[in-house]
Amino acid sequence: MSNNMVADHAIRPVENDTIFTISAKASEAVLKYGAENVINSSMGVLLEDNGDFVAFKSVYSYLKDLDNPKIAAYASIEGDSDFLQAIKKACFKNHMPNAYIEAVATPGGSGAIHHAIFNYTNIGDSILTSSLYWDPYNTMCVENSRKLDTYNMFNGNGGLDIDAFKEKFDYHLNKQKRLLTIFNTPAHNPTGYSISDEEWDKIINILKQGASNKENKIIVLVDVAYIDFCDEKFDRRAFMEKFAGLDENILILFAFSASKGYTMYGLRNGALLCVTSKEEIAKEFFYTNLHSNRGTWSNGTKGAMRVLTDIINDEKVGNPFYEEREHYVKLLRKRADVFLEKSREVGLELYPYKDGFFVCIPCKNPLEACEKLMKNNVFAIPLQTGLRFAVCAVSEDKCMIAPKKIKEVLAECDE
Amino acid sequence: MSNNMVADHAIRPVENDTIFTISAKASEAVLKYGAENVINSSMGVLLEDNGDFVAFKSVYSYLKDLDNPKIAAYASIEGDSDFLQAIKKACFKNHMPNAYIEAVATPGGSGAIHHAIFNYTNIGDSILTSSLYWDPYNTMCVENSRKLDTYNMFNGNGGLDIDAFKEKFDYHLNKQKRLLTIFNTPAHNPTGYSISDEEWDKIINILKQGASNKENKIIVLVDVAYIDFCDEKFDRRAFMEKFAGLDENILILFAFSASKGYTMYGLRNGALLCVTSKEEIAKEFFYTNLHSNRGTWSNGTKGAMRVLTDIINDEKVGNPFYEEREHYVKLLRKRADVFLEKSREVGLELYPYKDGFFVCIPCKNPLEACEKLMKNNVFAIPLQTGLRFAVCAVSEDKCMIAPKKIKEVLAECDE
Repeated sequence: MSNNMVADHAIRPVENDTIFTISAKASEAVLKYGAENVINSSMGVLLEDNGDFVAFKSVYSYLKDLDNPKIAAYASIEGDSDFLQAIKKACFKNHMPNAYIEAVATPGGSGAIHHAIFNYTNIGDSILTSSLYWDPYNTMCVENSRKLDTYNMFNGNGGLDIDAFKEKFDYHLNKQKRLLTIFNTPAHNPTGYSISDEEWDKIINILKQGASNKENKIIVLVDVAYIDFCDEKFDRRAFMEKFAGLDENILILFAFSASKGYTMYGLRNGALLCVTSKEEIAKEFFYTNLHSNRGTWSNGTKGAMRVLTDIINDEKVGNPFYEEREHYVKLLRKRADVFLEKSREVGLELYPYKDGFFVCIPCKNPLEACEKLMKNNVFAIPLQTGLRFAVCAVSEDKCMIAPKKIKEVLAECDE
Repeated sequence: MSNNMVADHAIRPVENDTIFTISAKASEAVLKYGAENVINSSMGVLLEDNGDFVAFKSVYSYLKDLDNPKIAAYASIEGDSDFLQAIKKACFKNHMPNAYIEAVATPGGSGAIHHAIFNYTNIGDSILTSSLYWDPYNTMCVENSRKLDTYNMFNGNGGLDIDAFKEKFDYHLNKQKRLLTIFNTPAHNPTGYSISDEEWDKIINILKQGASNKENKIIVLVDVAYIDFCDEKFDRRAFMEKFAGLDENILILFAFSASKGYTMYGLRNGALLCVTSKEEIAKEFFYTNLHSNRGTWSNGTKGAMRVLTDIINDEKVGNPFYEEREHYVKLLRKRADVFLEKSREVGLELYPYKDGFFVCIPCKNPLEACEKLMKNNVFAIPLQTGLRFAVCAVSEDKCMIAPKKIKEVLAECDE
């Protein structure tokens, strides 16, 4: 007999999450050397300059004022109906595409990505994303016996490598006749890149070319986990309107997360939304994902749905929230600007950062660099071809000194 | 081209949950005829006699007193470590089996059942449960391209039909060499049956016979969603100790839910636990399900974990909670006793009820009976071979008059 009780498809390595492991080491270092001497940029959560966790007061005071049954009762399987209306507004704001749109509640953005992978691909399929990517995409693909393939993310001009995308897209679509592509934008995790409107035009052209063969099924998942930490002035939702009037065999999905934008990380609140030119496809989306909810985790966190719904629909709840969030959007931008400026000064190369929680440093041997940085009490996450530095979790003062420290360590590593 | 954008395995009927639909009709009837004239026994949630939702004050006042970050931050992927210790105590209490036990947090009991099905069976496998069962078991099997098969639940003496179980168990185990069996006990949904200790001895003997062929992998999932609404005097956890010293190719899993026992329905809190004689199998369980968490919904509801952990570990939090819950356990028992007594008086046959939220009335044509009952403003759920009446949701007064009403309607249906 084999030694496993789990089915063959579920045999996994005995290992925990890299981020969790490095974060634990950072906590040890804080105890040993004092918080002021440690730069912990490992965790993708927003912290105050003094290291305190940021939980929006407007969100939690409202949650705590809810009558108990509004937290305790089951939500509807698909998500409470007013939440499903509100989440569309929260996702698209004033750039709602002119198309059929449906939504189903999910536990955070992760649950939404799960459903997209599970329902819109087959076992063995390749799913496409950029060469720098959030590692759990791969975990989710492996979990569901899918494969993750990547295209080179950046061209030589600091933009998206559209040619590399097109090559892989055409290859897999031709082979599979069904392809799910994941774009994590704006404020890409791990690089902070945001695909520009002009780049979206090019991407959509490629999708349309693929759609001219009516046998093809083209599904694009836009993971907007960090969108609400983009400064409003950049108008990072404008691209959403481009998804109106697409061919019927192009389906656009959005994974919306309330984790960062509403500091609801631990409440597990999010949604999968669809944008399609065909009413039937929207209906199919709704019932398939409703069924997946019941068949996977049943339903979502009711109190969190209530809070988000009332923020969107009731100015009295919304206004203090938007004001509070705006403060932190500015705080984050300030940190990122400082990090970028100091990186330029010391000649530390970065992947093109536009918005969001992370900057990313290109690196030939990320594991080695990560180890060396830890010895210098700088904790960052090693990725495919870079080091992820979470400006969201590091004070402005430390963002000012980190680039020099990193530059020195990379030099030691012959980078 | 086909008209579907979802993959073939994910094509679902355009329909919502039966329970949800009937419950909505009950709400309409309340508006039309007044709450006092409607018996709504559709929803499996505990309500006060006046129809108010029961959310334990001890749970929600403690939750609301938590510092915001204790609710807002991400929990660990596998569940916070003190929660994973506490949940073992919450599940087994003073009947912890002498075996290797591990736990992984899941969103409610549903998430735990999902992982058991997903990780311990293969696509196409049959999963075994009793002929009266909680319908989402089937939804979860279909979702994951598994099949649900059933054995006749009750013998002529009001006990579990062990022979029928053995026949199906042997058949599938012989065919598949790997079999997951789900027992929903104690306080079975939908019948309220609790498998007796003597019946467990017989079941375990059957498992052991199957395990003598070392190629076989025997997995038993005990769904204890309603266990904490059994009166303590029945000692309904005693059977748990019987899972010590089993063969290495028998794995016992528990789906623990905080939905009912802690009125955390809408907070999504639960766990999958394993009981095994082999340390390696427990370790495999832990890492496989940790991976499944990351690959499906990432992590659980942190605040809910905190509350349950402190209830278990801190008497000052636990004592008021246990006192409050005990009040409702008695309230529920009273309703069930009244329903049983009145059923005897009017000659309404019931499946053997022992504990919990539901009683169940045998019925040849449940859909027809359900429709007729609705016309009489009695709302119950049609099942495979019966009508589920949720005493948890109906006042003692109404539990007193319901059996006669149901008896009359069944007579009209020639039952």
